[in-house]
Amino acid sequence: MPDTATDLLAAIADVGADRRRGGFSRHGFDRAELELREWFAAEALSRDLAVRTDRNGNMWAWWGEPGPDAVVTGSHLDSVPGGGAFDGPLGVTAALAAVDALRAKGFRPVRPVAVVVFAEEEGGRFGVPCLGSRLLTGAIDPDAARRLTDPDGVTLAEAVSAAGLDPARLGRDDDALATVGRFVELHVEQGRGLVDLGAPVGVAGSILAHGRWRFTFTGEGNHAGATLLGDRRDPMLPASALVLAARRAASQVDGSRATVGRLVPNPGGTNVIASTVDVWLDARAADAAGTRAVVDEITAAARAAAAEEGCSVTVTEESYGDTVHFDAGLRDFTADALGGAPALPTGAGHDAGILAAHVPTAMLFVRNPTGVSHAPAEFAEAADCAAGVVALATVLERLAG
Amino acid sequence: MPDTATDLLAAIADVGADRRRGGFSRHGFDRAELELREWFAAEALSRDLAVRTDRNGNMWAWWGEPGPDAVVTGSHLDSVPGGGAFDGPLGVTAALAAVDALRAKGFRPVRPVAVVVFAEEEGGRFGVPCLGSRLLTGAIDPDAARRLTDPDGVTLAEAVSAAGLDPARLGRDDDALATVGRFVELHVEQGRGLVDLGAPVGVAGSILAHGRWRFTFTGEGNHAGATLLGDRRDPMLPASALVLAARRAASQVDGSRATVGRLVPNPGGTNVIASTVDVWLDARAADAAGTRAVVDEITAAARAAAAEEGCSVTVTEESYGDTVHFDAGLRDFTADALGGAPALPTGAGHDAGILAAHVPTAMLFVRNPTGVSHAPAEFAEAADCAAGVVALATVLERLAG
Repeated sequence: MPDTATDLLAAIADVGADRRRGGFSRHGFDRAELELREWFAAEALSRDLAVRTDRNGNMWAWWGEPGPDAVVTGSHLDSVPGGGAFDGPLGVTAALAAVDALRAKGFRPVRPVAVVVFAEEEGGRFGVPCLGSRLLTGAIDPDAARRLTDPDGVTLAEAVSAAGLDPARLGRDDDALATVGRFVELHVEQGRGLVDLGAPVGVAGSILAHGRWRFTFTGEGNHAGATLLGDRRDPMLPASALVLAARRAASQVDGSRATVGRLVPNPGGTNVIASTVDVWLDARAADAAGTRAVVDEITAAARAAAAEEGCSVTVTEESYGDTVHFDAGLRDFTADALGGAPALPTGAGHDAGILAAHVPTAMLFVRNPTGVSHAPAEFAEAADCAAGVVALATVLERLAG
Repeated sequence: MPDTATDLLAAIADVGADRRRGGFSRHGFDRAELELREWFAAEALSRDLAVRTDRNGNMWAWWGEPGPDAVVTGSHLDSVPGGGAFDGPLGVTAALAAVDALRAKGFRPVRPVAVVVFAEEEGGRFGVPCLGSRLLTGAIDPDAARRLTDPDGVTLAEAVSAAGLDPARLGRDDDALATVGRFVELHVEQGRGLVDLGAPVGVAGSILAHGRWRFTFTGEGNHAGATLLGDRRDPMLPASALVLAARRAASQVDGSRATVGRLVPNPGGTNVIASTVDVWLDARAADAAGTRAVVDEITAAARAAAAEEGCSVTVTEESYGDTVHFDAGLRDFTADALGGAPALPTGAGHDAGILAAHVPTAMLFVRNPTGVSHAPAEFAEAADCAAGVVALATVLERLAG
């Protein structure tokens, strides 16, 4: 079954392909993401959608005059390191395909429609997820945002400046936000909920409370061969204890998750005792109290292990978002418009979760047969993507008509 | 006290400075190491020493006609990632300073003298320590060596080719090896043995058996938020268990050491369960049996932890060198020449340890007040370096006169 959303994904399948990790590495304002921005602008212009980039680097392609009460859809084009092809881009290509479908049937929106691309949703470069939507809505302090650095030490201010934006103008953008009447984001499902239900498309019920914490362990760099065990202060030991404690702590709070997927010993030589180790903890639970309980227990274990090895540890909360319950009215409206699509909770964060604090927001999920996400195995059948496009078009038509 | 060896080190203090890690990152055939090679060639030529680069990229600066029974001294110019200023370069600058000192007093060698710079001693780029001396002596298979890759996927064959060498000619070099009558390497001490003895200079007694093993854990990459704990196969868990097992195992074998200073989760995203994790184990003990016992116990722990998480693990021995007992005659001769310098064992590997299997070999150590090595705090006072140069010149004079 041909599907425009799938075809559009195929057109960008070479951009940001990561030969070392597999999958794609496309991060906010890097070469691959900038190429995808150009591609998106060209696709929008070929549809006579007027493209505007807001002060925070989010791109808006307008069908109709930009203005209040717009029906906004879209997602993001960046990926995690070595991520899949669907997380983000499917929500953008499905939005463009839905516009095509609505036009093909002669629909003319009463309210303006916009397709949005949010910047750096994964936080793969600057560490804070949903950076573009957080800046737009004022959910992150712009001074703190400007100081964020990527692994090469480039600040966000420098990166947006290189991309042609004025870093001084980063921050809450009431003009842009005021145009959004409702936001609907389509996304590949990150789990097997729809597989189990036998449904190609579902709607989101809620998003877990979640955040990121960076632990920096400091010991003493030294020679791996010449330094006696008793003379060592090796930060790799408490860092490893943290990884194991994360699993233990999460297993004690129902439905919670705690993960270390990024751990960087410095200097990182085989024959060198590390002087410092940075560990990033991703922790999520049904509510703030659950998340806090998990993080507190992991922090206590990390501190105890650091003390035992004569190391110090600092903990920095890099981001946190409370539980999101999507607007019940829009959720039910969306599910009804799709003939009773099932509602699913999700452990993943989304720009829709940030927008939800400001405007009625809904999400559509498209079935993922592998259940895998943030990895090359992430997948959605073209037929399911097409069903997603039909569903999204239906919702947009009802909301904008 | 002015010291030529120290002054020469100061001249290269900007080359390969690592602003991110601190210290220096100079690796075999990278830009910094190539710049140091040019510097060395210029210093040698300014002393009328004829420079030859052998088939394996080791540089030889000859005082006198190259030929058999030469007295060879020197060390290496590469570093570990974020390493100190002395490990390697001090042995080269002290050798040049010793030549200066001998010439200043009118000494004319009967046997030829050569100052050698071995390539990639730390294995910081291609993973195998003492790569240049191993290739020279045939201690590594040249086919295996050509296939070694750096973290960017560049092979040793490609790297030496870019540096102007013929990769097909890598391997045991009997012509070059036949010139070496004796080898004496001066090195900063990597520990506090000389501090405790109150001596500026000592000689090496032995080198621990040591090697490097790479463990690759494979699980399933997935979303850190959306994947239930029970559905995970997270290779970070057994990787962390290995780090803790290494310390436990080494503490059970007297005098042994086991260290993980390099650990790389792939893809390495904060919100991504890793699909694979590479862990490099550095293990050392007094003898082969002790090293094997430590590595076997760590391997068993790694396999058990991998199985518990549904992960697989492969183990690759990247390098191994048995215990080195330096030539007793040359060691005693050297110690006597220095008025009874103390003999110290070392846990660190050296090119001298590789050469020791082929020719009488000795090492001189210069006191390191911090005891730290492979880190920016590595140090030697100029007065102690000067004492090292005097000692080295004395030994060279007796051996070559």
